[in-house]
Amino acid sequence: MSRLSLSDTDKTARDWFAETTSALGCKLITDAMGNQFAVRPGLQDGPPTYAGSHLDTQPTGGRYDGILGVTAAVEMLRVLNDNWVETAYPVGVVNWTNEEGARFPISMVSSGVWAGEIPLSRAHNLREVGGGSATMKSELERVGYLGETPCSHEVVPMAAHFELHIEQGPILEAENRKIGIVQGVQAYRWFSIDVLGADCHTGTTSFAHRADALLAASKMILHSHRAATAASALASTGILTLRPGSTNTVPGSVRFSLDIRASKDSTVEAVEADCKAAFARIAAGEDFGDLNAGGTSGRPCSVAWTTDSVSPAINFHADCIRCVTDAAGDLFGSEMGALTKEMVSGSGHDSVYTSKRVPTTMLFVPCRDGVSHNPREYSTPEDCAVGAQVLLGAVVRYDRMRASM
Amino acid sequence: MSRLSLSDTDKTARDWFAETTSALGCKLITDAMGNQFAVRPGLQDGPPTYAGSHLDTQPTGGRYDGILGVTAAVEMLRVLNDNWVETAYPVGVVNWTNEEGARFPISMVSSGVWAGEIPLSRAHNLREVGGGSATMKSELERVGYLGETPCSHEVVPMAAHFELHIEQGPILEAENRKIGIVQGVQAYRWFSIDVLGADCHTGTTSFAHRADALLAASKMILHSHRAATAASALASTGILTLRPGSTNTVPGSVRFSLDIRASKDSTVEAVEADCKAAFARIAAGEDFGDLNAGGTSGRPCSVAWTTDSVSPAINFHADCIRCVTDAAGDLFGSEMGALTKEMVSGSGHDSVYTSKRVPTTMLFVPCRDGVSHNPREYSTPEDCAVGAQVLLGAVVRYDRMRASM
Repeated sequence: MSRLSLSDTDKTARDWFAETTSALGCKLITDAMGNQFAVRPGLQDGPPTYAGSHLDTQPTGGRYDGILGVTAAVEMLRVLNDNWVETAYPVGVVNWTNEEGARFPISMVSSGVWAGEIPLSRAHNLREVGGGSATMKSELERVGYLGETPCSHEVVPMAAHFELHIEQGPILEAENRKIGIVQGVQAYRWFSIDVLGADCHTGTTSFAHRADALLAASKMILHSHRAATAASALASTGILTLRPGSTNTVPGSVRFSLDIRASKDSTVEAVEADCKAAFARIAAGEDFGDLNAGGTSGRPCSVAWTTDSVSPAINFHADCIRCVTDAAGDLFGSEMGALTKEMVSGSGHDSVYTSKRVPTTMLFVPCRDGVSHNPREYSTPEDCAVGAQVLLGAVVRYDRMRASM
Repeated sequence: MSRLSLSDTDKTARDWFAETTSALGCKLITDAMGNQFAVRPGLQDGPPTYAGSHLDTQPTGGRYDGILGVTAAVEMLRVLNDNWVETAYPVGVVNWTNEEGARFPISMVSSGVWAGEIPLSRAHNLREVGGGSATMKSELERVGYLGETPCSHEVVPMAAHFELHIEQGPILEAENRKIGIVQGVQAYRWFSIDVLGADCHTGTTSFAHRADALLAASKMILHSHRAATAASALASTGILTLRPGSTNTVPGSVRFSLDIRASKDSTVEAVEADCKAAFARIAAGEDFGDLNAGGTSGRPCSVAWTTDSVSPAINFHADCIRCVTDAAGDLFGSEMGALTKEMVSGSGHDSVYTSKRVPTTMLFVPCRDGVSHNPREYSTPEDCAVGAQVLLGAVVRYDRMRASM
């Protein structure tokens, strides 16, 4: 499915969110980033304990990424109402705007503004990708969701933030587990690597006379995989462009992305340092890691690194993690060990930003083949229901914990 | 420089060619592909012995590729005139149209039509690259070079074809030699290789769960280099595209070009067979050639080959090669061994097509750093003069050989 942020279809989903939560007795706040906060009153006032996620998708996205976290939170409201549950403090549901960064190109931008980590003006001025003239602000106005409440964790406070999400990876399914108890978010760094050799004719230039930027880049990509394997980290190249791009011209210029991730910052830094040293030696033509074995030494290339993004490791809050663990324990009983797994999130979520201001955690449910950001994305109704059940249990536990303090 | 075929600047060069050769006493023929043939009469009639090449360039080309072969041939006419030389048979100079294939996308298309290897209608209907509406025929008409003479080796016969060209490679310069005595043209085959894995999230998918098409392609590129090195052949990848192309998505689909060349057809075939077997094993995840060492086994990819072009090895004519060798021997004397080198042309030229119909050969002069198809392309005036001298000597020798038969 396709529900780009602040499109007409996103407006429809927002309207549904507002109507549904109002009908369930919630008070609604829309802030200056279009974030929607639905608050169900508690026995006493105070910052609500929130559950939520986002309703926008990638251009060819799935029906679960983000959406499950919001719909399960709405279901939580319904269950609380149906069972006449009175919480000590208010409970809230949040729909964050443009989490995907697919239309306005900063991911998690609106939780970032709420957390005070991204300036409002920068977010409002983000222009839609693809050459259109719309900005976040103009589209917030157009769909009627430019709220008057300032987007700020001080103006719209939270006691805690719980986010249910599909795993977006294959581990839970492969191990036949039902709930991932998320401990934090991996550290990652993104780089662009430029390898510069020299264009030459494929037919008239011997290997010895070539400075083949693509052959060097191929060795670097292979080395990054080895270095990450050795460090129990991840290294990935998702973009590679070359010039000039003709069958009979050896490419003199290659640029590729490198995405390094690990649960600890120090591991990411070590893999980065390893690759920086190794890429320089590969570019120089040294036989590093036996990559030149059986080949012909050519002329040296140069290599340059640009750091595009640095995201430190995030550790979620022990109180929140305990609430999820206890809720899962209630549901699974003696099967708890077999059906849950402590995990680290491989990707960023709005919970990364909320964790900077308030106790936060996430819980994962399995998704088929680990597929996400794709129409084939799928989680069984049973798995979604288990996730929603544990989410409800965790929020109620957190509320009780506050009341008992 | 930029002189795309049948552009206004190409028309200026054509007008210069026609005026200059006419002033030197030649009769001019322009055929239906705009090929220009300037013929200096001999003592008796018969097919002329030709020297020539092409005057068009790449969009950002050099001042020597092709052009040297035509201007040296025009200089040959001038020397023959200045020295009152009467050849036994006519001597000709030819300017072939659109050799580069840069504007109308078939290289050597007009010598191909002349040789009967490419249909005239296919050539005439070639549309210019870049989305313009002009065809070869419409541009031939526009610049006034759509000749009435049929483009055919039967209507415009040649006794032989000699082509002086810059090497477009670094060997002569590196070895400090002055003339490459070309024995033929390398065989080559061009392929597109499609590697299909599965897109997945770089942060949430362990190496074991990935089918990383770019990692597999990197191993294949490295293997092709090793296989070609082992066979004294060349293997090159000049184009690589991937999908979907995002820093945090492992590419599920990669397409890359593979250009395999060697002096013998059997060597090209052997490298192709080696790579076909090896790529299949690499895609399947086997540890082929130690390429998996230190890495993590992932899920298999698939690999598919498309053959884009097959060009068998060309052997030039022994009589023509002997004429070049003798002419160089006269010039270099005892230094002949040090200053010449028997070579195989790595790239195609109009001589490939003429060789299918008439005795043909080429001779090379050094070019700086092996650079070609680039404004930095350069050969010293001295090296160009040596080339022109040997070209003249070879043509005169061929004419004498015919007269003595």
